[in-house]
Amino acid sequence: MTPAKRLVVVGAGPGGYDAALAGAAAGLAVTLVERGKLGGTCLNWGCIPTKHLLAATLAVDALEAQAKQKLASGEVTVALAAVQAKKKKLLSATQSAMAKRLEQAGIALVTGNLSGVAPGLAKVTVGAETRDIPFDALILALGSRAAAFPGVKPDGKAVLGVAPVLDFAEAPKSLVIVGAGAIGLEISEVYRRLGAKVTLVDAAPRLAPAEDPDVSKVVAQVMRRKGIDARPGVKVESLVTDEAGMARLTLAGGEVIVAEKALVAIGRFAATVVPGLAELGATFADAAPNRAWLVTDDTLQTAPDIYAVGDCNGRTLLAHAASSQGHYAARHAAGLESGPYAPGPIPGCYYGAPEIMRVGAIAAPGDGVSEAAFVANPIAQAHADTAGFARAVWREGKVVGLTAVGHGASTMGTLATVIVAEGWTRERCEALVFPHPGLDETLRAALLAEVKIKE
Amino acid sequence: MTPAKRLVVVGAGPGGYDAALAGAAAGLAVTLVERGKLGGTCLNWGCIPTKHLLAATLAVDALEAQAKQKLASGEVTVALAAVQAKKKKLLSATQSAMAKRLEQAGIALVTGNLSGVAPGLAKVTVGAETRDIPFDALILALGSRAAAFPGVKPDGKAVLGVAPVLDFAEAPKSLVIVGAGAIGLEISEVYRRLGAKVTLVDAAPRLAPAEDPDVSKVVAQVMRRKGIDARPGVKVESLVTDEAGMARLTLAGGEVIVAEKALVAIGRFAATVVPGLAELGATFADAAPNRAWLVTDDTLQTAPDIYAVGDCNGRTLLAHAASSQGHYAARHAAGLESGPYAPGPIPGCYYGAPEIMRVGAIAAPGDGVSEAAFVANPIAQAHADTAGFARAVWREGKVVGLTAVGHGASTMGTLATVIVAEGWTRERCEALVFPHPGLDETLRAALLAEVKIKE
Repeated sequence: MTPAKRLVVVGAGPGGYDAALAGAAAGLAVTLVERGKLGGTCLNWGCIPTKHLLAATLAVDALEAQAKQKLASGEVTVALAAVQAKKKKLLSATQSAMAKRLEQAGIALVTGNLSGVAPGLAKVTVGAETRDIPFDALILALGSRAAAFPGVKPDGKAVLGVAPVLDFAEAPKSLVIVGAGAIGLEISEVYRRLGAKVTLVDAAPRLAPAEDPDVSKVVAQVMRRKGIDARPGVKVESLVTDEAGMARLTLAGGEVIVAEKALVAIGRFAATVVPGLAELGATFADAAPNRAWLVTDDTLQTAPDIYAVGDCNGRTLLAHAASSQGHYAARHAAGLESGPYAPGPIPGCYYGAPEIMRVGAIAAPGDGVSEAAFVANPIAQAHADTAGFARAVWREGKVVGLTAVGHGASTMGTLATVIVAEGWTRERCEALVFPHPGLDETLRAALLAEVKIKE
Repeated sequence: MTPAKRLVVVGAGPGGYDAALAGAAAGLAVTLVERGKLGGTCLNWGCIPTKHLLAATLAVDALEAQAKQKLASGEVTVALAAVQAKKKKLLSATQSAMAKRLEQAGIALVTGNLSGVAPGLAKVTVGAETRDIPFDALILALGSRAAAFPGVKPDGKAVLGVAPVLDFAEAPKSLVIVGAGAIGLEISEVYRRLGAKVTLVDAAPRLAPAEDPDVSKVVAQVMRRKGIDARPGVKVESLVTDEAGMARLTLAGGEVIVAEKALVAIGRFAATVVPGLAELGATFADAAPNRAWLVTDDTLQTAPDIYAVGDCNGRTLLAHAASSQGHYAARHAAGLESGPYAPGPIPGCYYGAPEIMRVGAIAAPGDGVSEAAFVANPIAQAHADTAGFARAVWREGKVVGLTAVGHGASTMGTLATVIVAEGWTRERCEALVFPHPGLDETLRAALLAEVKIKE
C-alpha cells in the first residue's frame, strides 16, 4: 500500500477526533467530517455527562453511607438544573478546545453528513449542497446509536432514550430503566441519589451481564441495599406512554409498573448506512443493514484504504478503544504502522455504585483464580463501603484477567491494564511496592492470594 | 553468612509484622516482640486513623465544592464521637486479625519491651521479669516518635501530639498546627471540615516542603480557598498552654495566635535507645543517641545479623517502605535473598485536600519535564475540583519521576510506581490504553506532553 496523502475522517467522536489528529501529526492533509457535535456519544450523551451527574450527587451518597452507620446526619439537595447548566457549559468549552486543536493542527472540519462513498471520493452533504471530497484513505468513525425493538423504544413522551434522561432539569419521582448494562446501572444510581424510585429490569439473567457472575451478585446486593428495585431475568412485554402521560411497563406474565419516566438502554446498534460502501468491498456482521457492525481486518480496514474504527466496527464499544483504533488507523494509512492492530487488553469500567473494573479474561473452568475482599481494606472501611472484591485470573502462571467491584474500583483500571497487558507473574506482582493505604491494596492482596483452579 | 534458624523481630508495626510473617513463611522460628499495640504508628496514630477521619468527612467537602458553584445546598453534620468509636472498633478488629494471622503462622508474640541486646540475645522486659530470647538473626523495627524541641512540645493540656488529636471526640473550635508535612496537612483538612478555624505554620519556606515547589503552590492555593490560614516560612518562638487553658502560639516577631488546641507535627525522631546495640557494632546517623536513625548497609543490617527496618533506619518513613524492608530482611536472614535490598522507587501520598502523589525524582535543572493540568480533566471538572497538575521528570529518554497534586491524586500512586520503576520511554507510555474517563488521564497527558528542559 502506498502511504496516503489525503485522509478523510468521518465522525468526530473519540475515534475520529484522534484519527484526525494522528493523521495530521503524520503529515497527512486531513478533512474531518461531522454532522453533529464534536465529541460523539462519549462527550455528549455517554461517559462524560454520566460522570458529571455522578460526581454532582456524590455528597448524597457519601452522606447516606455514613448516616446508615449513624456517623453523620444532614441533608444534601442537588440543584439539578444548575448542574445541567454547568455540564452544558463544560461540554461546550471542551468542544471549543477540540475545535481549536483541530484548527491548530491544520485539519479542515466540515460540518456535514456522509451521504455516500465512491472510489476515492466521500460524498458529504453540507446544507443543500453535496461535496465530493477526494481521499487516499478514509477512516469511518461512525459510532453507534441506541438499540430499540418493537414495543420497547423511546416515544419522546415518557419513554426516553439516554440523551434526554441525561438532560433532566428535574429528577422524576419514579424512573423505570430497561437494560442493566453500564448505562442503565449508572443512570439508576444517579436518579436514586436524586430521590427517584428506580426500577431496573433486564432480560439477561443477571445485572452487568457482560461481567463475572460474582460481580453481578455484588451489584445486586449493593443496589438492593440502596433501595433500587433491580430485576434481572425479566422479559418486557411492552413499554409505552399511557393516557395519563406516564411510562407503563408491562412484563411478560402481566405485571405492570408505572413510572413518571422510562429509559430504554438495551444496547447499541451500529450506525453504518453509507450508500456505496458495500460496493467498495465493505462487509457487515449482520444481515440487517441498518444496524450492522462493519467487519474489519487486522489493520482495521473494512475495504481497501477504508478503515472502520470505534463503535461502528463492533469490536469494543468504549471511547478509549475508539481513540486507540483511530490513532492506529491514521498512522497505518500514513505508512507509519505496518503490523496488525494489537493494542493489548482494553480496560472497561462502570462508575456507578458499586464501581466495576475489568481488564482481560473472566475466569472460566480450568483457570487459576485468586481473590481478596474489600471488607478488610482500610480505605473502603473508612468510606463505610466495603462490599465487593478483586479477582485475578491466571493461565500458565501469568495474569490474564483482573476484575474488581466495589468502592473506587474504576481507579484501578490503568494499573490492571499494565499487569494484564504484560502478563505479570506472581514474582513480579510481589516485587511492586504499593502505597499504603490504598484501595488497590485489595488488588494486590488478590494477586498474592492462593491460586485455586476454577471448576 | 549461615542462614538463621531463630529470628527475633522487635516491633509489630508494618515493618516488624511483615518481617515476622516472611520469616515464618521462610521456615524460621520467629518471636515477635511488641510493647504496645499491633500495627505501630501507621495503624494506631498515623495513616489509618487519618484516612478514617478524611473519609468520614468527605461528604462535607464534596458538598462544599458543589455548593461553591451553587450546584447543591444543605448541611452535613459529622457525629465525630461515633466516628471515633467506629474507628476504634475497626482498629481493634484489624489487630485481632493480625494476632490471629501471627498465631496461624506459628509466630510467638511476646508483649514486652526490648531492654537491651547482647551477642545472640535479646533482653525483653515482660512485666516484672526480663527474658533472654536467643536469636540467630534480629530484626529491629523500632519505629519513630514525634519530634519535639524546647518550647515546641506537647504538654498534654492544650498542646498535643498527633495521637490525642486523632482521638478528639469533639472538634475544637480553633486549632493551631505546627508542621506542614503530611500529618499537618491532612489533619488541618480534617478539622477544617469539622468546623475548626485552622492555622497552620511551618518554618520551611513552603507547604509540603519535601515536594516539588510547584506542588507547594497548589497546596497553598487550595488551602487558602478552603479558608485554612496556612503560613509557611514562619518561625515559632513558643507554643504553650496559657492560664485559661488555651494553646498560645508566639511567632518570631511577636505575633500571638491563641487556639483551643494545638498540634505539634514537626517531624519524627528515631526510637532507637537499645542498651548494648552500639557494642554489637551498630552505628547511628546522629550524635544525639535518643533520636538517631540506625545506619544500615545494603542488606539492611546495622550490625552483623542485626537488621534495622522501617522508620528506625531513617531511609523512608512510610509504612509500605517498612513492609518491603521487613519482608526482605527476614528473607535475607533465612538465606532466600542474597543481593542488596533494591525495592525500586517508593511512592508517597498525601490524602488531604489537595491530594499529592510522588514517585522518584523531583525535577532539577537540566531534567526534562512534561506536564498537564487537571483543569481539562472531566472527572476533576465533574467534582468541581480542578486545581493542580501532573508532572513527569525525564532523564535520558526515560521517566524517573512522577508527581501529581489535585483531586484523587493518591489513586495514581501504584501506576506511577510501575512507570518510574521500569523507566518507561515515551513510546511505552503511548502504547498503554487508559480507561476513559479517568483522573489518571491527566498523568497520561503529562507523559505525552512536550518535554521541556528545566532551567
